[in-house]
Amino acid sequence: MTLRAALEPRSIAIVGASDNPHKVGGRPILYMKRYGYRGAIYPVNPGRAEVQGIKAYASIGEVPEAPDLAVIAVAGDEAVRAVEDCARCGVKVAVVMTSGFGEVGAEGKAAQERMAASARAAGMRLVGPNCQGLANFATGAVANFSTIFHEIEARDGPVAIVSQSGACSQAIYILARQRGLDVRHVHATGNEADVTVADLAAEIVQEEGVRLVLLYLEAIQRPEVLARAAEFARGRDLPIVAVKAGRTASGVKAASSHTGALASEDRVIDAFFTRHAIWRAADPQELVMAGQLYLNGGRPKGRRFVAVSNSGASCVMAADAAEELGLELPDFGEPTQARLRAALPTFATPANPLDVTGAILGNSGLFGSVLPILGEDDVCDLLMLAIPVAGAGYDVPRFARDTAEFRHRFGKSVAVAAPQAEVRLEFEKLGLPAFAREREAMAALRQLAGHSDWLRRKPARRAPAPVARFPAGSEQFLNEFDSLSLLAQAGIPVVEHRLCRDEAAARAAYRALGPKVVVKACSSSIPHKTEQGLVRLGLQSEEEVAQAFRDFKPRLPPEDGVLVARQVAGRRELALGARVDPLFGPVVLVGDGGIYLEALKDFRLLLPPFNEADALGALSELRVAPLFEALRGKPALDKSAVAHMAVALGDAMLGWGGTVASVDVNPVMVFDSGAGALAVDALIERAGAAPAP
Amino acid sequence: MTLRAALEPRSIAIVGASDNPHKVGGRPILYMKRYGYRGAIYPVNPGRAEVQGIKAYASIGEVPEAPDLAVIAVAGDEAVRAVEDCARCGVKVAVVMTSGFGEVGAEGKAAQERMAASARAAGMRLVGPNCQGLANFATGAVANFSTIFHEIEARDGPVAIVSQSGACSQAIYILARQRGLDVRHVHATGNEADVTVADLAAEIVQEEGVRLVLLYLEAIQRPEVLARAAEFARGRDLPIVAVKAGRTASGVKAASSHTGALASEDRVIDAFFTRHAIWRAADPQELVMAGQLYLNGGRPKGRRFVAVSNSGASCVMAADAAEELGLELPDFGEPTQARLRAALPTFATPANPLDVTGAILGNSGLFGSVLPILGEDDVCDLLMLAIPVAGAGYDVPRFARDTAEFRHRFGKSVAVAAPQAEVRLEFEKLGLPAFAREREAMAALRQLAGHSDWLRRKPARRAPAPVARFPAGSEQFLNEFDSLSLLAQAGIPVVEHRLCRDEAAARAAYRALGPKVVVKACSSSIPHKTEQGLVRLGLQSEEEVAQAFRDFKPRLPPEDGVLVARQVAGRRELALGARVDPLFGPVVLVGDGGIYLEALKDFRLLLPPFNEADALGALSELRVAPLFEALRGKPALDKSAVAHMAVALGDAMLGWGGTVASVDVNPVMVFDSGAGALAVDALIERAGAAPAP
Repeated sequence: MTLRAALEPRSIAIVGASDNPHKVGGRPILYMKRYGYRGAIYPVNPGRAEVQGIKAYASIGEVPEAPDLAVIAVAGDEAVRAVEDCARCGVKVAVVMTSGFGEVGAEGKAAQERMAASARAAGMRLVGPNCQGLANFATGAVANFSTIFHEIEARDGPVAIVSQSGACSQAIYILARQRGLDVRHVHATGNEADVTVADLAAEIVQEEGVRLVLLYLEAIQRPEVLARAAEFARGRDLPIVAVKAGRTASGVKAASSHTGALASEDRVIDAFFTRHAIWRAADPQELVMAGQLYLNGGRPKGRRFVAVSNSGASCVMAADAAEELGLELPDFGEPTQARLRAALPTFATPANPLDVTGAILGNSGLFGSVLPILGEDDVCDLLMLAIPVAGAGYDVPRFARDTAEFRHRFGKSVAVAAPQAEVRLEFEKLGLPAFAREREAMAALRQLAGHSDWLRRKPARRAPAPVARFPAGSEQFLNEFDSLSLLAQAGIPVVEHRLCRDEAAARAAYRALGPKVVVKACSSSIPHKTEQGLVRLGLQSEEEVAQAFRDFKPRLPPEDGVLVARQVAGRRELALGARVDPLFGPVVLVGDGGIYLEALKDFRLLLPPFNEADALGALSELRVAPLFEALRGKPALDKSAVAHMAVALGDAMLGWGGTVASVDVNPVMVFDSGAGALAVDALIERAGAAPAP
Repeated sequence: MTLRAALEPRSIAIVGASDNPHKVGGRPILYMKRYGYRGAIYPVNPGRAEVQGIKAYASIGEVPEAPDLAVIAVAGDEAVRAVEDCARCGVKVAVVMTSGFGEVGAEGKAAQERMAASARAAGMRLVGPNCQGLANFATGAVANFSTIFHEIEARDGPVAIVSQSGACSQAIYILARQRGLDVRHVHATGNEADVTVADLAAEIVQEEGVRLVLLYLEAIQRPEVLARAAEFARGRDLPIVAVKAGRTASGVKAASSHTGALASEDRVIDAFFTRHAIWRAADPQELVMAGQLYLNGGRPKGRRFVAVSNSGASCVMAADAAEELGLELPDFGEPTQARLRAALPTFATPANPLDVTGAILGNSGLFGSVLPILGEDDVCDLLMLAIPVAGAGYDVPRFARDTAEFRHRFGKSVAVAAPQAEVRLEFEKLGLPAFAREREAMAALRQLAGHSDWLRRKPARRAPAPVARFPAGSEQFLNEFDSLSLLAQAGIPVVEHRLCRDEAAARAAYRALGPKVVVKACSSSIPHKTEQGLVRLGLQSEEEVAQAFRDFKPRLPPEDGVLVARQVAGRRELALGARVDPLFGPVVLVGDGGIYLEALKDFRLLLPPFNEADALGALSELRVAPLFEALRGKPALDKSAVAHMAVALGDAMLGWGGTVASVDVNPVMVFDSGAGALAVDALIERAGAAPAP
């Protein structure tokens, strides 16, 4: 576990130590002194006997012990040599702040690789290059030159920030501190020649004092490391929130010029995060938004939301936002309404959201009267108190006390919203999270509820691998018969069909499968048969089938036949697919089907193994989801059957273990609830075959 | 123009004047003194000779002149009597602060109506009841008891706030002042027994000094008043931004218990705002967000967006957000790249977003070097400077000067983003809008560009009314033949069809319209014929048609016939519709069609008259819009033809002038680009007929 030395080094050398506390080589010394680092500090500078009042050494070799950690703050080739020296001396972790490597082209990349190689050879871990470094405010080990620890005094606390970008690590730190969060770890990994954000996260999630982990990522190099970290964190109810930038095509392009990050399709990231209960934030502000709510310890059981305000307008807007954010807005039962009616002025309505009206001016105890009613009657999981205006005559400290008492007594998750900083302050003093904007308070509560749900979930286990009687061959694609057979073996219901090698067989197939059938060429060399005119739909006589056979057969390689399948019409055509992502492995797609799948992009991805509930969740997020429900006198569609197929396909992808590159089942015919779903077309691509031209 | 007296009263009486400057009847006097009101102030209080040092009167009748405006700050029935007294004395505007009227049930509503009636009879305008009143900081006429003018000193400026809700008027005021906006008008209209937000807005848009109008609405009682105000404002390039709360079902429910607001379908509001160039904000924060950008005078011609930052991460996130917000991210041409390359350190990439890198620490003039290149080469309409972190070593005042110089010299719209308040302050000092959040800065720029575009647009003019040979009758629905005829007269292409009253005619119709036809019952008494089994599709022989005729005819009233229409298959089935909204009048719908229109809700509404560009804009916002483009080897769909049909339907709705309640054209068959679109089914509902059971 050499990475432990990155986080808790017992001794730190600074190669290129500077007497100027605001130079790259000076800041770590300034910060370690300021933040009470108790280990040994060894400035290395051949030109000085002392640096910032501490005895200096001419080279890393002269330092009296092999330091756990060495900061490299010398320029260009000197940095490469310094890394080699450190490796030789038994340093456990080198933090290379120097830039001008992988981010500036081929030559820099080569130098970076040399640096990494010499570290690897010696078993030394390398952070950076081109990084702002590591900071641990529990120990004062600040091997980091970020400006911001000079501007905003650090305070050890339960939050850890790990970021590829140095500037972003500081921006997140600023925002976290503005939100009243105390931060223990601030690490920036830069070019990630060796140590990645995920590596550090995997170490940090094991620290008992850490209760919230915030990540900024542009690339996920080894998803399995992050996955393990996330599962460990889930095991101890430790939330991880992450910004993964480069979510759009433009963002990916910008990211590659920033850190040379590898791109995966963005929805795979969503699927990965969902699977591992990592909540995704759009930007640093969203990253810290729910921080206090997490740390307050609340893990709401549901999304029942109540808003309480002294303004009717806030109530109307809260109702709007609740619906948009997917919060439930429960109606109060009659007993609760009666109790509220007794507590409120006669002209107030005991409804949710609850407007206590301007009467709060005459009766400062009004919030204190209604909140316990909401708590005792257990009407909500989440509560927002919105105070859009206050001033002379408003007893805000009392409002804050009453709210804190409510949270304390009933264990509900509470957020306050008030545009006036002085109003928020009264609540913040009592540890209540306060937001300038009502919508943000609600979004934070929504996040807490959603993430709590993810953290409670048991991740799906891998099912027993299906028997993989995989047809031999080297063609890129399996023919449709083989594709359907493999799916059927995997437990996916497929349309009834026969492979016919002569006309008599085709005629017999019609007699068995008619009155309406489809005839298709079945050849591994013709994966896209529709475009070749080798599909006939809706054939209704033996003669038509025989004709189709006679027309198609001569156009196929001699060993290939023709597929006759029962023609079925489902209520809706969906699509199912799978492919192997180079980084994330098998990925399953469920979506609205047909030829417009790619144009409309109404699909979701899932990472196997997953279970039926996960698949149903993905289906419910499709834009066409309303069509799955009972509608216009028609019964609901068989969502469960589709979910079941998706789970089977996911398990199969794992079971096939890299033999299959992609699976395309489009369309999947879906029938009425209880009547199932059927794969009516299938195309399986072998792994390792030459790609399609 | 008695409402002018509401905004610039020459004299103000306060009925129920209080010596306590923090009571409802005391605050207006406190504020008028503080904010330099020069007109006469007449406190009315039978128990005092003086109120807050000003001579008081026992009754409104004893005031030496009829005051322009009277504040009513007495309780309950006394307020009703005070309104009557004011009306009798010739007061021009009464501002009734008293609550307990329309918002508390039937009895209160009746009292409110009596109050309004006595005002109406005397030609006196009534603001409120249950309102916080009117405030004009240009004149100091503050007939308003809001707490906030005591908490945050008002400063006359170019912004006007008009809100139904008093608390919300204050919240908006707080946020506007936090954003550095100086506010002239703050009005809250409460129950709107007479004067509405729209009435006041219509007056305010005529004030030359007003350059930004912010509205909060829960109901739009008379859209035509707001429409006129908006068109006047558009004529002078005056932006109006509005929150219309109650956008969701839950919000509407909450709003009705707040001010008894009438509900219209929310998308009609969107259509209305779009038509009249009113930008819609989700909440008070969004309402003020772009304020400074508007006031800076920029009206960008397009959405070409450039981001400049000292952080690569900010650049990546800006690229993501640009794509999500619909901002264009232009590539720099080679000459610009060359100039940037010369200005930037070698390891920087001259791409958009532009990362000047940490080199800004060594060269504080770097922003000042690159910004003029971007300006001279005219590469953008909108620019964001993002500084996620600064501190010792960052010459922020210089960054601010260079940015201000750029804006001044090139007239571009510029927003700054920095999470540190002290960084923002340097820019704000120079009048540059600064945001804590990059995404918000970008959203504000996006709003400015979009709204500028709307403000430049000429509103569509009403086309000459089509000849309305409307069939006589009293049935709720026209039969399909009459419906199609009316549409055809209105210039909407309809499928070729014949009305057949005997079998011979049906046979002749087949010969004329075959080889494939549809046969449908055609009766005004059977509007939903499919459900009755009175439609046959895909008939391919004269005999089948004759059989359908024989089957259908006996099931129809004797005067009705059978429609035979050519069966056409478009590439896509869309839907077109129209109805008369009780508040907004004719509304046209364009959307993805078929029976799932209502479940999928993939449609947009337009208020006629509108032109083809408006209709194309609405089509482009549909989720199915990607299918309109050339795709998978198929040509684009004929969007123009659909847009043309929508325009014709809108003009027809205006031309029919209230004869028609609704029109349903579903499906509209759309063909390849150039090949048009056809109405293949139509159902027109008469206005004023008994509603369907």
